[in-house]
Amino acid sequence: MAALLSSDMEPQNIYAIVLAGGSGTRFWPASRKSNPKQFLALGSDPHESLLVATVRRLGFLCPWQRIYVATGEHLREATRNALPALPEENVLCEPLARNTAPCIGWATHVVARKDPTAIVMVFPADHCIENIEEFQSTVKEACHWANQDFFVTIGIQPSRAETGYGYIELGETLNHTSFRSQGFVEKPDADKATKFLNGGKHLWNSGMFFFRASVMKQAIARHLPQLARGLAQLDEASVTHSEQMLLPSVFESVASISIDHGVMEHVSPVAVVRAEMGWNDMGSWESGWELAAGKDENQNAAPSNAIFVDSKRNFVQMLGQANTKAKTVALVGVDDLIVVETEDALLVMRRDRSQDVRHVVEQLRQKNQTLL
Amino acid sequence: MAALLSSDMEPQNIYAIVLAGGSGTRFWPASRKSNPKQFLALGSDPHESLLVATVRRLGFLCPWQRIYVATGEHLREATRNALPALPEENVLCEPLARNTAPCIGWATHVVARKDPTAIVMVFPADHCIENIEEFQSTVKEACHWANQDFFVTIGIQPSRAETGYGYIELGETLNHTSFRSQGFVEKPDADKATKFLNGGKHLWNSGMFFFRASVMKQAIARHLPQLARGLAQLDEASVTHSEQMLLPSVFESVASISIDHGVMEHVSPVAVVRAEMGWNDMGSWESGWELAAGKDENQNAAPSNAIFVDSKRNFVQMLGQANTKAKTVALVGVDDLIVVETEDALLVMRRDRSQDVRHVVEQLRQKNQTLL
Repeated sequence: MAALLSSDMEPQNIYAIVLAGGSGTRFWPASRKSNPKQFLALGSDPHESLLVATVRRLGFLCPWQRIYVATGEHLREATRNALPALPEENVLCEPLARNTAPCIGWATHVVARKDPTAIVMVFPADHCIENIEEFQSTVKEACHWANQDFFVTIGIQPSRAETGYGYIELGETLNHTSFRSQGFVEKPDADKATKFLNGGKHLWNSGMFFFRASVMKQAIARHLPQLARGLAQLDEASVTHSEQMLLPSVFESVASISIDHGVMEHVSPVAVVRAEMGWNDMGSWESGWELAAGKDENQNAAPSNAIFVDSKRNFVQMLGQANTKAKTVALVGVDDLIVVETEDALLVMRRDRSQDVRHVVEQLRQKNQTLL
Repeated sequence: MAALLSSDMEPQNIYAIVLAGGSGTRFWPASRKSNPKQFLALGSDPHESLLVATVRRLGFLCPWQRIYVATGEHLREATRNALPALPEENVLCEPLARNTAPCIGWATHVVARKDPTAIVMVFPADHCIENIEEFQSTVKEACHWANQDFFVTIGIQPSRAETGYGYIELGETLNHTSFRSQGFVEKPDADKATKFLNGGKHLWNSGMFFFRASVMKQAIARHLPQLARGLAQLDEASVTHSEQMLLPSVFESVASISIDHGVMEHVSPVAVVRAEMGWNDMGSWESGWELAAGKDENQNAAPSNAIFVDSKRNFVQMLGQANTKAKTVALVGVDDLIVVETEDALLVMRRDRSQDVRHVVEQLRQKNQTLL
């Protein structure tokens, strides 16, 4: 892979866009609007946030100067604090959330201004990847196809009949790990998901994308012309350093649409690089338990001073007292629970109900609570 | 009942001893050595501790001057703070715990010095009684028999085959609610408890006792002669105001024994007054849930800002932030849990495992934790 990369492309024109927005509902009460998932240390290192882990993972290919982090204006400070070495101008703050197409489009234009030949890689900031070696070889392979002017996505080999993800259908073989895409498939029902799992022709859509900046600009011009016009205005404004001023009106003028729906489903050629690489999209507290490091012999993941009496497979996070001694937690006769304590809230939830934390968030919203 | 009391005795010689020691393990983490059960608001009034409720319940018969609270030296301040109207000298602090016989013996001597004709009533400080009218009539009836020089206990009509209580076997009928005791029975096994429940001849030993002070003094002299000698020394010392000085050596010299084993099992005549009166000994968090006021339609007892999603029959106490806004607690898909949060600890426990909180306390003790 390394040979493949070095032989046909210049690594110094590879740029990364890390998508670090998010509304902070799935990991309530640890995640909030002001502290969404990417700021939580949910991976294997309990001292490193998902965002920092995502950026650090790119170190093999991208120095800080070629990494851009796209986030919301309200997360600017938190993002800069998490990544103090990142150049200030590499934090791209959307004035309002418009899903991924406007965001990736804007970041692509920013990169293209700097380097018209740029290859752009897009990574969600809040996923976990356990197998770093496989990640690196997969990314290099994806860059190789992007360098051939493919749109590229990483497809994850399914390990279960998951109905919560979009899928990619594999077409013609490009090599032993890469394929042409036969199309994107919406979240399937359980039957379809089982067929996908057994059929071997469908991979999970990981949300990672690779493309040449100029190729993406052309695709946006064709499929999202309104967005293309706004981005062209921003390019112009950037010459006179007035991009920031123009940004809100441009974002207000464009439709809220994902890069999948807005671009990827309509373009060609699209390549898929197949990978496993211990990928987890950290969709809920259940993922938090699955990936938690240092579980005890009863599969409890908890602070070291926790006390368990006949309790198994629980996930406990005591985040409430950052500056003082953490509370001692004791579990008696309970299995398969998520217990999360913060300074102002406590969640006790069955692990297999992790998706339903959204009902709590909804109720809080209705009550106008300040806990969101 | 009121007529019975007024016709044959002087209410002004009726004194109460409230037993308010305790080690604070069953209601961990709310209860601690320095804050045992009687200081918790576990009854129907969420703003009144069990101790205050116990003393207040005696108001129909005893003014403050005739109420004594027996506790440990380490609880002196907490007890006085809880009962600021109680005369200072009515707080009797044991220098070390020696079970109930030395404590009740000492308090009986203190009362007898003041009034040699005294009738003494003994009440645990940490029980709940819901039916106040029945409590009052039962207490008056018990005092009536104590005035006839009976040792008297209140026997609670069993409502289940409880193996955690001692029982009293009923003998000869004295009137429609009172009987001679046929003997005290240790905690039975499940078979025996079922027989007791169905047989109708056994009542739960409530731990409430009534006797004439002079009669108890004689009984102690006969059955616990070493204790009697120590108490006589304290009587002498009290004349020269040196009782406090002598107290530690006296308590060190006497055996640790309950009033049941040390006295009640050996004396006669013993009367039992049968009652129901919504009595609950608050033996565990399970009792806390049973008695909790203001349960919602799913039988959850929790702070009013709690959020429940598909969760039933849970008991939640958020005690962690006395001076600031209480945490918001959310339960998702969990039933029959006890959730108790304090400033330094969090307990999550299946309700039917409430007795096992002692295993947590044991583990904390082994770890030399400061949470006891």
